[in-house]
Amino acid sequence: MVTYKEAGVDLEKADRSVKIISSILKKYGVSSENFGLFGGIYKLSENSYLIASSDGVGTKLKIAFMSGRHNTVGSDLVNHCINDIFVHGAEPLFFLDYIAMGELDLDILASVMEGFAKACSEAGCVILGGETAEMPGFYKKGEYDLVGFIVGRIEGRIIDGRDIKEGDILIGLPSNGLHTNGYSLARKIIFEKLGLSIDSPLPYDKNLTVADELLKTHRQYYTALKNAKELIKGMAHITGGGIPGNLSRIIPKGLKATIRKDSWEVPEIFKFLVKEGNLSDEEAFRAFNMGVGMIVIPYGEEFLNYLEKRGEKFWIIGKIEKGEGVEIV
Amino acid sequence: MVTYKEAGVDLEKADRSVKIISSILKKYGVSSENFGLFGGIYKLSENSYLIASSDGVGTKLKIAFMSGRHNTVGSDLVNHCINDIFVHGAEPLFFLDYIAMGELDLDILASVMEGFAKACSEAGCVILGGETAEMPGFYKKGEYDLVGFIVGRIEGRIIDGRDIKEGDILIGLPSNGLHTNGYSLARKIIFEKLGLSIDSPLPYDKNLTVADELLKTHRQYYTALKNAKELIKGMAHITGGGIPGNLSRIIPKGLKATIRKDSWEVPEIFKFLVKEGNLSDEEAFRAFNMGVGMIVIPYGEEFLNYLEKRGEKFWIIGKIEKGEGVEIV
Repeated sequence: MVTYKEAGVDLEKADRSVKIISSILKKYGVSSENFGLFGGIYKLSENSYLIASSDGVGTKLKIAFMSGRHNTVGSDLVNHCINDIFVHGAEPLFFLDYIAMGELDLDILASVMEGFAKACSEAGCVILGGETAEMPGFYKKGEYDLVGFIVGRIEGRIIDGRDIKEGDILIGLPSNGLHTNGYSLARKIIFEKLGLSIDSPLPYDKNLTVADELLKTHRQYYTALKNAKELIKGMAHITGGGIPGNLSRIIPKGLKATIRKDSWEVPEIFKFLVKEGNLSDEEAFRAFNMGVGMIVIPYGEEFLNYLEKRGEKFWIIGKIEKGEGVEIV
Repeated sequence: MVTYKEAGVDLEKADRSVKIISSILKKYGVSSENFGLFGGIYKLSENSYLIASSDGVGTKLKIAFMSGRHNTVGSDLVNHCINDIFVHGAEPLFFLDYIAMGELDLDILASVMEGFAKACSEAGCVILGGETAEMPGFYKKGEYDLVGFIVGRIEGRIIDGRDIKEGDILIGLPSNGLHTNGYSLARKIIFEKLGLSIDSPLPYDKNLTVADELLKTHRQYYTALKNAKELIKGMAHITGGGIPGNLSRIIPKGLKATIRKDSWEVPEIFKFLVKEGNLSDEEAFRAFNMGVGMIVIPYGEEFLNYLEKRGEKFWIIGKIEKGEGVEIV
């Protein structure tokens, strides 16, 4: 069995790091009150807030390096950032990027920027600026790190799950593959354990290479859901930590989200990774989104009508019960 | 002679990268109008703007790695970001950070966060959030990259140099050492050419080690100047590209800033680097701030009185004449 920890990612340590950061911010009096949400919220005036979030692409970048395809990771990052602020009801205002390379490669830079620009254009979000850093000795030739920073605006209600009650249903929206998390584990299984190469066809679909599958773009949910904000109690963007790690952020105390894992069709890539990595359910659901990229807890049936009218695919994946946290059954 | 290009930093290529980015943003219609300022500006409402900037610390981080002192680079980054938006008249609202490591080191993380928090506290700026990324295989053990994002607010006038006229004087405010630029070149001269170690005393001051000098914190100018905003026509934060690369951004067409390099006392570290690196003046002024970290073009004498009253050290370093660009004489 390959564990996420063996793949070099220690989620418990990550949790401890959040506690350390939080205590330092308190000590210096620079903490915001809502530390721990998907984005940080700044009150501009009564009923008007700014929300900001920063993120990286993580080791999905390694797939871009191996395949030489650099035009999608920028979109991954923008979409990840947009989802992280949209879950609180924000409209994206502007995006800034950071690209660091050992030696500036203008072709790679142009490809990466195309990805940023395409995704921002789709969401109607301006790229306000950015930083291109040449850092000799930091990154290998042809490699780089990307960071995205987004600011959005919330007018009126901050969506934060506070109205969630026993009996509410949970709606899952499909992901488009791994999105941007679980890559260290996926790479370990695919390249180290199975010895596949970046161009190998995948056993479950001979027309799909490892690169094709692993570079599928992180889906942006803002466009699909922005006109249904008033119908939504809470949303969880399923990224690092999976359904348990992210959904738990919006479930009020005394309540539990029970997720039925047989309520949607888990995509082939996840079945493949679970089988070949001999992953436990717990491990798999912590590392991957398992086919659900966004979970919505709506006020009622009207939200389902909205999705049907738009032709959006969705599943009822669970319900809210008495208890604590998130349980996957 | 050691050139900046030999040290791995190609400023011409960096200029070309800006053109590439700008054309891609235009193609996708996601460009903001003021691309090229120190920060990007977003209009919130009449006479109310947001301004944002992202930055890294660059290869100054290598000095932190070599010395094991990680508690100042966070302040460098915050102060750099604050200066970049303050030059347009902004009050900082909030900061977000990105820290990426190969393997999460909680001691280093805590040290870095202390630097962020201290500098934010000094400027009255909240840390709204951030991302701590564990990226196995990206960074060497004990190494990391840092990115900072800042958002500020401008109420009323955006300071952008538009009122600058022939005959205006330029005021220089002292830097605190190298700040955060020129480190690739400085490292090449100090470690490669001279063979000094991180703990070597510097020949011009036996009580100062290489680490002490090179880790001096990037000075924040917001606190000193925030109450004099109405007296200021334009400001240039002297970072990568030096005085010519940064001052030129705010000088209106048809005018030239003439800087007299004998008008201030260049700090010992720069004299040392110029001598030991056998640098031309042009090279040195492009790579380093040479002792001037902020240039202010005021409306008149009142600004000088303001500085004197505060006990701020400053120099009159040049004037505005007919012509184009920046000339150092």
